[in-house]
Amino acid sequence: MNFKDLVKEQLYEGKGKKIFSTTNPDLIIAEFKDDLTAFNAQKKGNEDGKGALNCQITSLLFELLEKNGIQTHFKECLDSNHILCQKVEIIPIEVVVRNVATGSLSKRLGIQDGLELPFVLVEFYYKNDTLNDPIITDEHCKILGITQNQDDLEFLKTQARKINSILKDFFIARKLRLIDFKLEFGKLNDGSIILADEISPDSCRFWDKDSDQKLDKDVFRQDLGNVKVAYEEVLKRILSQQN
Amino acid sequence: MNFKDLVKEQLYEGKGKKIFSTTNPDLIIAEFKDDLTAFNAQKKGNEDGKGALNCQITSLLFELLEKNGIQTHFKECLDSNHILCQKVEIIPIEVVVRNVATGSLSKRLGIQDGLELPFVLVEFYYKNDTLNDPIITDEHCKILGITQNQDDLEFLKTQARKINSILKDFFIARKLRLIDFKLEFGKLNDGSIILADEISPDSCRFWDKDSDQKLDKDVFRQDLGNVKVAYEEVLKRILSQQN
Repeated sequence: MNFKDLVKEQLYEGKGKKIFSTTNPDLIIAEFKDDLTAFNAQKKGNEDGKGALNCQITSLLFELLEKNGIQTHFKECLDSNHILCQKVEIIPIEVVVRNVATGSLSKRLGIQDGLELPFVLVEFYYKNDTLNDPIITDEHCKILGITQNQDDLEFLKTQARKINSILKDFFIARKLRLIDFKLEFGKLNDGSIILADEISPDSCRFWDKDSDQKLDKDVFRQDLGNVKVAYEEVLKRILSQQN
Repeated sequence: MNFKDLVKEQLYEGKGKKIFSTTNPDLIIAEFKDDLTAFNAQKKGNEDGKGALNCQITSLLFELLEKNGIQTHFKECLDSNHILCQKVEIIPIEVVVRNVATGSLSKRLGIQDGLELPFVLVEFYYKNDTLNDPIITDEHCKILGITQNQDDLEFLKTQARKINSILKDFFIARKLRLIDFKLEFGKLNDGSIILADEISPDSCRFWDKDSDQKLDKDVFRQDLGNVKVAYEEVLKRILSQQN
């Protein structure tokens, strides 16, 4: 299948992706943009080819997760920067999984940058740009009307930990430390919850195992070098044959 | 007993209170200051007699809670602005209980000011002025080394809800709505946890049942009138004979 035959109209444009409806009401297409944003879009940039890299990385990682029993919205990669996905209703929670303290966690709680956490930390943030994506608890999720179902929230946490376990092992075999990452989940019509959105160096932090070199959006956030070179290195490691 | 015979040396000075050691190593004295601070001490003021009002209100409310089976650090009121208390190791969590959305909750999560919450919300904030008292989850408490014991955290939540239930009923009988409040707890040498700090219009929000008039530190925060008049009204209601 290809993008042109399937696509109908643009439904939504976010910071990193556009979403299109398709000729099949149960499917959508996600287009990966070359735009880069950080600090809730206060810092903006663009890197030719970044979208294509994230498209390929996301496709490979969703395939890896599916092979390991994690249901995702991913159906297939259509071309260099489009993927075909199941249509879901996105749950407005950014599920953040952390193995190492860095970024906002270190700043917010005064925890030493780079500290290996004593256990895998799962946090929920309310997906709301106007409010700057505030951190929330299970109780806030209920008050905000995100869900009244504690089982849904437990499922998000369980899946997030399973995904972390799969990805962490996969990447360490490729000499990349998975520091932290952000997931989004969506609901199907039958109420079941599957992984959605993307998994890429835009949504994960990867540090080289030996040098601690950053190979993710922190290269853009902190002006550490060429973003594309970093993302290409992640893709190269994913494609390498350690597994 | 009186302050002068008991007091040894100042151990600590906070925004609203000074803490002194006493001739008995198991007891401390808390002195209620007339200082008012808000927004993490960015706004400062002083109201002659405010400390004495909070001292009397705290004493009466701790006595009420003790009578209702809640263990507190309160031993006795020594004079107009000193109370004698058990010495505890303060747990660095501000336990916030909310019946109605207002203040930072409304701002942070975009919830309508004055909305009655669908259930009693208990939140933990990390007691750390440098970090501006960030909100934390149970997992953060463990990472920060506050406690490794989930039972301790559950106890804090259970006690907070019990205290809310007692105080809410007490105040509504006096035509005051208990909107939200902040508690601090401390550990005794045997590891048991008791209520500490204070309960006063500095740490609670009270709205008049009929007029919704604010009778708490929001009068200072939002320049709504005379702080002392508001606190005196709270004391008057506590002393009234509805119970």
